[in-house]
Amino acid sequence: MSEKAIQDYYPDEYSHCYGCGRLNEHGLQIKSYWNGEESVCKFQPKPYHLALPGFVYGGLIASLIDCHAIGTAAAAKYGAEKRAPGTDPPLRFVTASLHVDYLAPTPIDAALELRGRVKEAKERKVIVDVSLSANGRTCARGEVTGVLMPESMMSKTQTVAGKFSHEKLDQCHKVV
Amino acid sequence: MSEKAIQDYYPDEYSHCYGCGRLNEHGLQIKSYWNGEESVCKFQPKPYHLALPGFVYGGLIASLIDCHAIGTAAAAKYGAEKRAPGTDPPLRFVTASLHVDYLAPTPIDAALELRGRVKEAKERKVIVDVSLSANGRTCARGEVTGVLMPESMMSKTQTVAGKFSHEKLDQCHKVV
Repeated sequence: MSEKAIQDYYPDEYSHCYGCGRLNEHGLQIKSYWNGEESVCKFQPKPYHLALPGFVYGGLIASLIDCHAIGTAAAAKYGAEKRAPGTDPPLRFVTASLHVDYLAPTPIDAALELRGRVKEAKERKVIVDVSLSANGRTCARGEVTGVLMPESMMSKTQTVAGKFSHEKLDQCHKVV
Repeated sequence: MSEKAIQDYYPDEYSHCYGCGRLNEHGLQIKSYWNGEESVCKFQPKPYHLALPGFVYGGLIASLIDCHAIGTAAAAKYGAEKRAPGTDPPLRFVTASLHVDYLAPTPIDAALELRGRVKEAKERKVIVDVSLSANGRTCARGEVTGVLMPESMMSKTQTVAGKFSHEKLDQCHKVV
C-alpha cells in the first residue's frame, strides 16, 4: 500500500474539498491509499455524524464513498499512464454520478473501512466500485462515475483560486 | 406550502440526524416544506462546503437530496394515509438507495433550491425524485428510495436513545 495518501498528491488549488482536501480545516480530510489494484481508506465518524442514535448518517457515507472513489480514479489513471502520482499535468477527477445502496445500518462507534476498485476506465471517464464496512460487515456499496475535470472548470477554478488567493481561501475555511 | 417544516414533526428520538435533525447542533438542519404535491427546501452552503474553489461539494449535494427526499416520503405517506403530519404512529423513512447525477458545477455563493416529488409509492417504500438548482439552473438531479424504518431498527434506536438519554446525546453533539 502506498505510504502517501492519494489526496496528498493533489495540487494546492484542488485541495480545498470538504470531503478530502488537506487544506479544508472544517472538512473530513479523508486519506486514501492505493496498492496498484485497490484503494483503502479508514475513517472514524464523529459522535454527531448520526442518522439516528446509534447509526451513521447516510450523507456521510455517500460523501466518503464519493471522495474515496474520486481519489481511486486519479491513482488508477496515473498508473494507467505509467506516471508517478502527482506529476504534471495533474489528473483531477470530478463526480458525474454517484450511486449508494445502504445494505445495513452502520454503527456510529465503529471505524469504517472503504475499499475501492476500478470497474471501467476510458480516456476521460473512470467508474469505481466502493464497499464500506464496519466491524467486518459490509454496510454500503457505491458506484461512482468520475470524469477528468473539464478545461473550462479547471481554468475557472484556477481563476477563482487566484482571485481568492490562499490567504482569502484560508479565511473562508475559518468562517463558521 | 406548509408553514411548519416536515422535519419539525419528527419525534425527538428521530431528530438527531446530521442532515435534518433539529436537535443536532453540528448538523445542516435542513427544512423541507410540503404542499401536498411537491416539497421545497432552500439551503445556503457555508463558504467551506467547497469541492473546488467556487463550487459546492458533491457530498453536500448528496446529503441535501437524501434528507429532503426522506422528508418528502414521510409527508407524502401521511397524506396517503389521510393523517395529519406528526400523528402516531410516527412515519420515519430511512434511505435504501441514493442516486445523484451532477449536471453542472454548483456555485458556492448561491442559495440552493431543492424540489422533491414522489415518483412511486408502495406500502413500505417510496421513491422520490429531487432536483437541485442554483440561480434558476438545475445543477443536480437525485433519486432516493426510502423505506419505512424496520421495527428492529426502531426498537434499537429507542433503546440506544433511552440508554444515551437526551442529556448524553446532547453531550455527543457538543463533541467537536
